[in-house]
Formats: sequence, structure tokens, C-alpha cells
Amino acid sequence: MSFMDADFMLKNAVARELYHETAAKMPIIDYHCHLSPAEIAADKRFSSITEAWLGGDHYKWRLMRLAGIEEEKITGDAPERDKFRAYAAALETAVGNPLYHWSHLEMQRFFNISEPLTAANADRLFDAMNERIAQPDFSAKKLIARSNVRVICTTDDPADSLAYHRAVAADPVPGCRVLPTFRPDKAVLIEKPEFAGYMQTLSAAAGRPVDSADACLAALTDRAEFFAGLGGKLSDHDFGRLPGRVGTDAEAAAVWEKRMNGGELTEDEADAYKGWLIVRLAAVFARLDWTMQLHVGSMRNNSTRMFRTLGRDTGFDTMSDFETAGRLSRLLDRMDADGVLPRTVLYSLNDKDYLPMIALCGCFTAPGVRAKTQFGSAWWFLDHRDGMERQLRETASLNLLSAFVGMLTDSRSFLSYPRHEYFRRILCNLLGTWVEDGEYPRNMETLSAIVEGVCYTNARDYFGF
Amino acid sequence: MSFMDADFMLKNAVARELYHETAAKMPIIDYHCHLSPAEIAADKRFSSITEAWLGGDHYKWRLMRLAGIEEEKITGDAPERDKFRAYAAALETAVGNPLYHWSHLEMQRFFNISEPLTAANADRLFDAMNERIAQPDFSAKKLIARSNVRVICTTDDPADSLAYHRAVAADPVPGCRVLPTFRPDKAVLIEKPEFAGYMQTLSAAAGRPVDSADACLAALTDRAEFFAGLGGKLSDHDFGRLPGRVGTDAEAAAVWEKRMNGGELTEDEADAYKGWLIVRLAAVFARLDWTMQLHVGSMRNNSTRMFRTLGRDTGFDTMSDFETAGRLSRLLDRMDADGVLPRTVLYSLNDKDYLPMIALCGCFTAPGVRAKTQFGSAWWFLDHRDGMERQLRETASLNLLSAFVGMLTDSRSFLSYPRHEYFRRILCNLLGTWVEDGEYPRNMETLSAIVEGVCYTNARDYFGF
Amino acid sequence: MSFMDADFMLKNAVARELYHETAAKMPIIDYHCHLSPAEIAADKRFSSITEAWLGGDHYKWRLMRLAGIEEEKITGDAPERDKFRAYAAALETAVGNPLYHWSHLEMQRFFNISEPLTAANADRLFDAMNERIAQPDFSAKKLIARSNVRVICTTDDPADSLAYHRAVAADPVPGCRVLPTFRPDKAVLIEKPEFAGYMQTLSAAAGRPVDSADACLAALTDRAEFFAGLGGKLSDHDFGRLPGRVGTDAEAAAVWEKRMNGGELTEDEADAYKGWLIVRLAAVFARLDWTMQLHVGSMRNNSTRMFRTLGRDTGFDTMSDFETAGRLSRLLDRMDADGVLPRTVLYSLNDKDYLPMIALCGCFTAPGVRAKTQFGSAWWFLDHRDGMERQLRETASLNLLSAFVGMLTDSRSFLSYPRHEYFRRILCNLLGTWVEDGEYPRNMETLSAIVEGVCYTNARDYFGF
Repeated sequence: MSFMDADFMLKNAVARELYHETAAKMPIIDYHCHLSPAEIAADKRFSSITEAWLGGDHYKWRLMRLAGIEEEKITGDAPERDKFRAYAAALETAVGNPLYHWSHLEMQRFFNISEPLTAANADRLFDAMNERIAQPDFSAKKLIARSNVRVICTTDDPADSLAYHRAVAADPVPGCRVLPTFRPDKAVLIEKPEFAGYMQTLSAAAGRPVDSADACLAALTDRAEFFAGLGGKLSDHDFGRLPGRVGTDAEAAAVWEKRMNGGELTEDEADAYKGWLIVRLAAVFARLDWTMQLHVGSMRNNSTRMFRTLGRDTGFDTMSDFETAGRLSRLLDRMDADGVLPRTVLYSLNDKDYLPMIALCGCFTAPGVRAKTQFGSAWWFLDHRDGMERQLRETASLNLLSAFVGMLTDSRSFLSYPRHEYFRRILCNLLGTWVEDGEYPRNMETLSAIVEGVCYTNARDYFGF
Repeated sequence: MSFMDADFMLKNAVARELYHETAAKMPIIDYHCHLSPAEIAADKRFSSITEAWLGGDHYKWRLMRLAGIEEEKITGDAPERDKFRAYAAALETAVGNPLYHWSHLEMQRFFNISEPLTAANADRLFDAMNERIAQPDFSAKKLIARSNVRVICTTDDPADSLAYHRAVAADPVPGCRVLPTFRPDKAVLIEKPEFAGYMQTLSAAAGRPVDSADACLAALTDRAEFFAGLGGKLSDHDFGRLPGRVGTDAEAAAVWEKRMNGGELTEDEADAYKGWLIVRLAAVFARLDWTMQLHVGSMRNNSTRMFRTLGRDTGFDTMSDFETAGRLSRLLDRMDADGVLPRTVLYSLNDKDYLPMIALCGCFTAPGVRAKTQFGSAWWFLDHRDGMERQLRETASLNLLSAFVGMLTDSRSFLSYPRHEYFRRILCNLLGTWVEDGEYPRNMETLSAIVEGVCYTNARDYFGF
Repeated sequence: MSFMDADFMLKNAVARELYHETAAKMPIIDYHCHLSPAEIAADKRFSSITEAWLGGDHYKWRLMRLAGIEEEKITGDAPERDKFRAYAAALETAVGNPLYHWSHLEMQRFFNISEPLTAANADRLFDAMNERIAQPDFSAKKLIARSNVRVICTTDDPADSLAYHRAVAADPVPGCRVLPTFRPDKAVLIEKPEFAGYMQTLSAAAGRPVDSADACLAALTDRAEFFAGLGGKLSDHDFGRLPGRVGTDAEAAAVWEKRMNGGELTEDEADAYKGWLIVRLAAVFARLDWTMQLHVGSMRNNSTRMFRTLGRDTGFDTMSDFETAGRLSRLLDRMDADGVLPRTVLYSLNDKDYLPMIALCGCFTAPGVRAKTQFGSAWWFLDHRDGMERQLRETASLNLLSAFVGMLTDSRSFLSYPRHEYFRRILCNLLGTWVEDGEYPRNMETLSAIVEGVCYTNARDYFGF
């Protein structure tokens, strides 16, 4: 096969038919991303491909650091052209890395450039891409609309006024709704130094005193309802390690009090509060008919030196390898037993959790909902060909792949939509391989319906868009 | 390749020759299953394909629940035809799921139906299969005999009278021995509420008082000898998590006493007793020339709500992710050092344990026995194409695949024997692939002997049937 | 493909071109092995293929034990011919085992024998190989030179006089430098019974009193400088489990004192000392511009019975399954924060650590160095086709494969160099597959440079040979 041509990743005839006839035509629901509502509202434009690609993308920064490039050309003050050259040189030898595919898919889809980026042609392509970027239709809203996106769910703090979401709703992206996602991590992660200050922020946003764990929950509940009023359908939670237990109301109240008085919490105390809060919040989400997303397994800011220099989300995170099955089971069971388990999508940053989590999902189902508890798309360090294919294969082997809500970008960039294409090609290739191997009937109608489901309709129906 | 045709899973010429010329002709030794001796003795017949397929198969129940089907059509009182329709609809989209293959292999082998089951043809196939089921030769013994099964090892409580085994021995399945397996979990898992009551049951069965840990061991020893007298050759143990240590005689005695007096045990106390008992039992098994099976890694009854409604073994189990290597090493080492390590087959429900367990097996060998300690066939949630192939590849890479005792059904159904066929196809395909890739010589005689071994003769010789 | 022919493992045209035109021509840098400097100095010769193959190779011993062979023919006093016959019989059925490939590659490359070894031809091949071994050019130095090896790094105790290294330097292997590697495990693993005695040995070697933790560090520092004076460029550490924390100077001093007075240490005390020492040593290595190797995850001497009979390194080791990500992150972060993190290569014996360790490597980089912290080649139980390919794929997916320092033998045998060939074939096949699949451009110049790098130039430049 030629380099990343029309049949990229599609290694058999069934795969090609499924992709070109069905998958490629499906709209996108990007139900979890980190796009900036402010940038959408402002219909953000880029100064250059360097800003568009390297402005905030710590995936690319990591690759450049691994290539030995000095920080000045990564997050520093080097000229945009020099930074781009440095990235091109790093990328050229990044054989087998998903950035190689992401970057070239973006070049193909948004810039009509199909030659590989190299150190040798970096200058020429820098100019060519910047010329395209300078054209009037290269703006946030236009890029979204051109990518056939129907729904975008951003990731938002409960205290956020959602002013930018309201602005976008008033002057929308054609064909696309932009909805907030409720991410109350700052109210959950009670051991963090910013917790006490955040309680004040939350109080101000909710317009009510936050002087107890119960009041914190009440304020969060108000804010969730406010999010729902603007179309919010999901919550999202990044736990690193899941809490080991669910505290009682009294325990949670005492832990909250202790922390607000400046006390340092034991891990067990913090867990008691966290477990209590997430179970109480689950009840709110269930009542609002929302879906709860649990992200597990990140281990952040591993380099203290670089954290002091550059701060968080700059490329110094990794995956943990904690035991998770027991904690997750107890948490979901508690919600289930209390009758407050919402639809739930699980993600882990360590693929050792794929099978245990997928198997556990099969224990928490509900009549009338397909795969009420699901294991989500390959996340972050696993979001590459092998990680995606493994997630698909293991979901198929243990659960029901055809009920899967599919891909998301998890991205900060308006150029990331080709990741959906990448996922769809991998999905179609896998299905096609099974058919060609005689493992599933060559019934194109059924297969096409499965593809439509995983690419679009499952997410639409599951999340209730 | 056509859908599940004669060459299903056989992707190269060597694989096809090995399967059709050798593997397909081998008899079956099903050395671990959960068939009911009572049903064999009664030469059980089925009211319908619904009873045969959905009567007790929690694999299928899980799939139906994931498809959003209401419980009434799964374990409830819905008419058999409705249940079958619901299963057909769920199965139709279960692409990549082993149930898709199991179900269609059973349709092909027992019902001569080769079309795929769908919602559309469910009614017709329901009738067709029921017609076949109504024929006089569709009974437990006839199904077993027709499947070319030489040995069946059921799973039995030490207190069982084995009356049904004796009945089957008196009126046997043609060509097949049905043997009991000694599974003393109720005497090992001392923390369970039913422990004290079980001691009485055991006492009654053994015809001797059980008033101490030693007496418990003595009663179990009697029962093991009784099982051996009826042809028993294996024990089986489901540990969830292996005990962390081996208690002394005095500790075990004290823990037993405490428990029988209604005390709640710490995990360490329970472990001391469990470790002590399994080491003592190992000595019995070694003396009887038995093989000990250790199942590790299950995490059961995760949904308290559904456990209260439906009880155990109804589809709400999953895999744990505990550390196991150190505990397993200490346990086997203790048996080995005491000179009482029997032949041992290990199973884990989490494939993260494959490599550590396979590597550990290489530390506990014995002259004159091929692979005295073995890692067993892919179990339960891992018992699918990818799980099986991984178990075979990793056994080959680290140990000696040609000494492997091969497949078992682990099933409650008389229709499960095509799982052996499935395994054999995967085995032959893997061997054939290596030959076609030039990784192993195209010596059909040696290859055929390896296939015969893994399909049949290894189990026969290793277990001593 | 024919059995292990010229295109062994090379399944596509790009792979074949990359291997034959580039990889096969690259010299070897064997930067981590266990060759005996004394044997090199003595230009060791072999009495027979039995001595060469089975003299100290516990990989082969394990395989023979798994085949049920009696110990007399493995490590005992059986005649060399009988031992060879036994190995041939075991190997013949070891389909899918890396020993099958290692052994046949060695037969092809050193003995010009391309037929498969079997029980039937064992006698004839025993004689043929011994005839070749008896020829004057079949000596350690000749074998190394013929294998196109440029650098060998042995593994040496800090107290070693390096007399044999000096002897080899005075009468070198043509074209090859033989350098010592500093492995201070005996000074780190303070809980071992031999620790106190080793402090005396170290004192004698360094020619200074070792009467405190600081004095121990000072003596080790002297020895590291001595190693550097003879061309040493690497340290190596086998941790089993990494220390959970880094003790203060005062803690380390107190723990050392307690241990030397015969005290038993808690795990936390031992960890405090180990963490302190490795961080202090890292500073020495960084100053010397060395690379530090951390081996993690071994669990040794699992069979107490066989340990008592045969001692250590006899084939009774396995992999652990401890959590490692958090401990490793804290250790590297501490070195990084203190400004003393040397170039570091990580190895784990359990492939569950591949992804977490590879991801963590991306957090500890440095300008001007490609992949300063790297995850090393598949180790020991993972050093086979699937383990190697997984290490390559995951390095490519998460980090920068083209910066990888590549293969090592980790071997005690002068016949192990074809393992580099094996690795190179797997590498070229993987790259070729990506190109044939359209995932990377068919730019043979860039691809060839990547292959040169991973086979040779990366190691040369990274280690500074």
C-alpha cells in the first residue's frame, strides 16, 4: 500500500467497503475533549502552523524532548519557524508513533498536503501551511463545521459561568452543538492545596454558602443543574487512584471540616470523603439522566524540576500501575445497590486494566440500555493503533462491541478530528478482517449498522443527544 | 474464507493438514467441567433449545444484559420462544465475541445448521432445533458419546456421596468414563458464613467427628481416598486470592477453633489456615498420585443488588487484579520443600498472570514428568480466540508447549464439546503459521505428534487416565 | 518460507532489503553481558558442544527439566554425549521456544549446519560440532572477532581487580574493546547475609576503611573511578523490587550501622538505605558521564530445595508482579531534582511494566541527548520474538524507537551473538511491515539510517564508546 493513501489502515475489501461506504460518511460526536469554549466563541484563528500544532500539545512536546531538542524550541521563545523545523526533524524519525499519523492526517485533511514532512521540506511546508492558515475560512468554527461535527462536549469546572457556552449557543457553529461537561475534580481531590480556596470559588458560583460537606454537595448539585440547563449531559472525573472506600455522611462531614481547618488528611480520610462525594454526585447524575465518566490511572507531574519550571499539563505525566479492580467494583456496586448508578464510561491509562474493567462492566447493566456501563476508547498514552485495536478486540471478546459509544478526541486542538477517521479505519479493518477470516458472516447490512452505531448512532442514543 | 466453514480458523495449508488429518480425529478428555452427574445418570433430555442454551449459561445471560434485554427474558418467566428470540437478537450483533463462535459451532455440529442465527430467522431456527432436540438420540449420554469423549471429570464437593457417579459407572456413557474431582473449597474458605455448617456436613459424610482443624483434614483425607476409589484423579481449588502464608499446625488449630466459636477472622488468620490446609491436602494428593488444580483471580458477586435477587453464578462475577506471583511461589515452594508437591495445573482469570505463572512453572519440575507444574488453558473471561492464542504463545515462548495438557470445557452444558474443536483449530493454526513462517521445520510427523499430545495423549498420560 | 533460511523472520520486501543491505552489515555493541573476562583473557576453548551449550546456560536447563529429563543429564555427571542427546530430544519438540531459534542460529552461523537438530540426528551432529570445536580457530577471541563485535561490556563487582580486563587490554580481541561494568549489588542489597563480609572485601579492594555508609559510598566512588579508568561507561543494578523511598544521610548511616552490628532490618529501613545509596551513586555516574542500568522485577531462587542442591543462577528464578511505576518515578524524580540523573536504561522482567516504564521515560529527558532515559531491550524471560516485538512496538508508540540503543546478549556464552541477528531481523520486519502497510513512507535512506541507529550508532553515541 502507498503511504497513507485513501485505503490507509484498510487491509481487506470488506474493510474498505465498510469505511468508504459507511464510516467515512458518519458525522462526529466528540463527547469528550478539552477544546476551549472561549476560543470557539471567539472563532479563534492561528498565527501559524506552529501555534496550531505546538501551542499547547504536550504529546508533541514529549516527542521533541525525546529527540533531544532544547526547551527553547519547544515551549520557549524560539521563532515559530525554528520550532516547526525542530518538530519536523523529530517527527521524521518517529516511525510507529501515533503523532506520525495524526500529523500527516491533519496535513492531508486540512492542508491538502500528502507528502511526508521531513527536515528537508520543513521550510517549504511551513510556508505552505501558513498560507492556508491565513485564509479567512481557517477558523475554529469553520474547522469544526468542515469536519462534520454534530456535538462537542468540552470539559468545564462546576464554578464556570459557562458564559462562553452561552455565547456559542447564541452564535453557533453551523450544524454543531457545543455542550459543557461537569468536571468537579477540584471539589473531590480534597488533599490538594487549592481545595480550601476552591470551596470559596464554588460558593461564589453557586450563590450559596459552602460551609460543610453537605453544603459543598448542594452547591455542586446546583451547578450540575445549571450545566444541564445549558445542555450538559456528562460528568467527568480524573481520579488517578480510585478511593478505597465510601465514607458515611458523618465521616465525610468530619473530613471536610478537618481539611478546611488546615488539617493534613490520611489517605483513608481523603478516600472516605472522595468515595462519599462521588456516590452522592452519582445520584445527581442519575436523576439528571447524565452519563458519568471515570478516568483512572494517571500519575502526574513526575518531574518536580520541570513542574517548577513549566507547571502542569506540559508533558511530564505518566500512567500508574495500581490495583484497580476491587476499588472500582466496590464503588459501582455501592451506586448500584443505592439505585443511583448512572450510565458510566470507564477509562484507564494502563492497559492492564482493560480486561478487568471490561469484565466488570458486564456486572452493571440495565434493561433498555445497551452496555449501560462501558469501557471507553483508548486514552492518552494508549490512544494509538495498537491501543485502540486492543480496546476494540477486548470489548468484543468480553462484552458487546456493537454497543460501544466509540471515539472521542480528548484534544485541545481544532485540528484533531482526523483522529475519528483514524479510529474508524481501525474499526473497519478489524471487522473486515474477521469477515475475511470467516469469523463473522459477510452480511454488509448488519456490518454497516454496527459501523454506523460505533461511529455515530450509539453515542447519540446512549448520551441522549 | 467463507463463514465458519470446514477450514474455520485454519489460515494456512499446514494448519489445515494438521487439523483435518490429526486434531479432528483425536478423542476428547474433558478433565475439568461442571456437568451434573445427576443429569448424566438420568440421561437428561431438553425441553427446547432455550433450556439447552439458556438454562444455566451465565455467559449468555451477560451478553443479553449488555444488549439491554429485560431480565424476564433472561432468567425470568418469559416464554421459551421469546427468550430465544431475545438471545438471537443479542447474538446477531455480537461480532468478535466467543459466544458467536460457540453458538454457531453448536448449531453446525449438533443441529446441522450452518446459516447464521439472526433476529429474522430466530423463529424458524427455534423450531428446527427443537425438532432435533425432540428426537430420541438427543440425550446427555448420546451427546457425550457422539462427541467422542473418553473422560469427563466433574467438579464435586468432598461431602458428596458420589451416588450419581456410581450410577453412571453402573450404566456408563459408551466409551467414556465419568470421574469425580475433589473440590474442597467449602472447607478451605474459612471466612465464609457457611463454614461451620459445612464442617457438620463433612463430618456426616466422612462418618467421623470434625472437631478440630486436624479432624477436618482427616475427614477430607478420607473423602479424597473415597473419590480415588471411584477413579478420581484431580482436585480443584478456587482461591480468588491465594493465601499469603502457610500457618503452623498450632495456628491452624487455633484459627479453626476461633472460627467455629463464631469469631470473625483477620485476613492473616484466614490465610494461615488456608495455607496450612492446602499444603496438607497437597500431601494427600501427592500420595494418591493426583493432579491439583489451582484457580486464581476470580472476584465474585460484584453486584450486591443482583446477588440478592438471583444468587451466585448468575453472571455478576469478574476478574481481580491482585499481585499473585509472590504468594504462588511461596506456596509451591513450601510443598516442594516438604516433598509433597503434586502435579499441578494453574489457572488465572487475569491474563496479566500468564507470564509470571508460566515462568514460575519452570521452577517446579520433576524428572520423568513433562511439565509437572503447568499453566492451564485460558479460563472463563479469557476463554476466547485471543486469550487461547496468548496462552499457547506464552507457554511456547517460556515453557514447553508440546507438554501442555490442553483444552477443557469448564462448562455446565452437554453441547460444549465443540470448544475443544475451537481450541484445536487455534492450536493447529498457530503451529501452521510458525511452519509457514520458517520458524519450525515442515516435519509433519513431529508436528502431528505435538498435536496429538496437546489434543489428547498429554492429558491421558499426565493425569494418568 | 523455508525453515530459518536467509530471509528468516523477514516477511516482506522492505524488511529483506533493510536487513540484508543494512542491518546485517552493522557491527555489534554488546553493552550488557555476563561473559567471563577470565575466559576471554585465556582465549577459552571448549571440550565439546555440550560444554559450550550446556556448561552454564540455565535457559537450556529449564527446558530440559520441563521435558522431564533427570538432573544427572542436566547439571550432573552424565557423559557429554548423553547430555547432548537429552537436550536434542527436548529441543526437538520445543516449538515456538526462543531456544529453538537461538540453537539453530548458532548451528548455522558457527557450525554451518542448517538441518534441524533432532533426537535422531543428535549423535551425528554432536560429532560434527565437536570436530569444528576442536579446530584451532574456535576460541573465545576468534568467536568474538568473527562475530564483528566492537564493544563488550562485562558485568563486574566493584571489588574486582579487573586484572583480566587489563590482560585483555594488553592482548586484545581484534577490533573489539572489552570494558567493565560496575555492578554494586552486594553493597546495595543490605538485607543479604553476605553484606557485612562484602564491606570488608570492598574495603580491601578500595584500600580504605569502610566503617560507615559514607565510607561505603566513598569506597564505591573510588572503585567507579577505577572502572572508568579502564574504559568503564556503565553501571548495572538488579533490584528485584525498587526501594520505596530515599533515606536521609542520617537514616542511611543508622541503617548501615544497625546492619553491621548484626541487626535485622525492616523492609522500610533497607529501602531507606538502598534509595539513599542509589541516588548518591547516580551522582557519581552522572559526573563520570556514565549510563546507569536498572533491572527490575526478578524473583530469584523460588525452589528452596533446588537452591540448597545447586545454588543460585541454576534456572529457578522467575518474574515478580509488584507495582513499580510509583517507586520508579520517585527515584528518577529525586535524581532529576538533585541534578544527578545520569543517562538511564530501564529493564523489567514483567511485560506489564513495559508501558508504564516507557511512558515514564518520556518524563525524564535532556536537551542534546536522544532518549536520555530509555526502556531497554526485552530481558530474560521476555527475550523472544513476541517480547522483543512488543518492546519495539510500545517504544515506537509511546516514545522514539529511532533513538533506541538496541540489543544486548545478557549472555554467558561466546556463541550468543546471533541473538543480535535475531533482534535485527525482527526490527527490520516490523519496520518493513509498517512501510508495506502504508504507515511510513518507503524512504529507504531514512529507514536505513533508523536501522543503522538501532543496530549500532545509537549505542555508540549514547554510551559514548
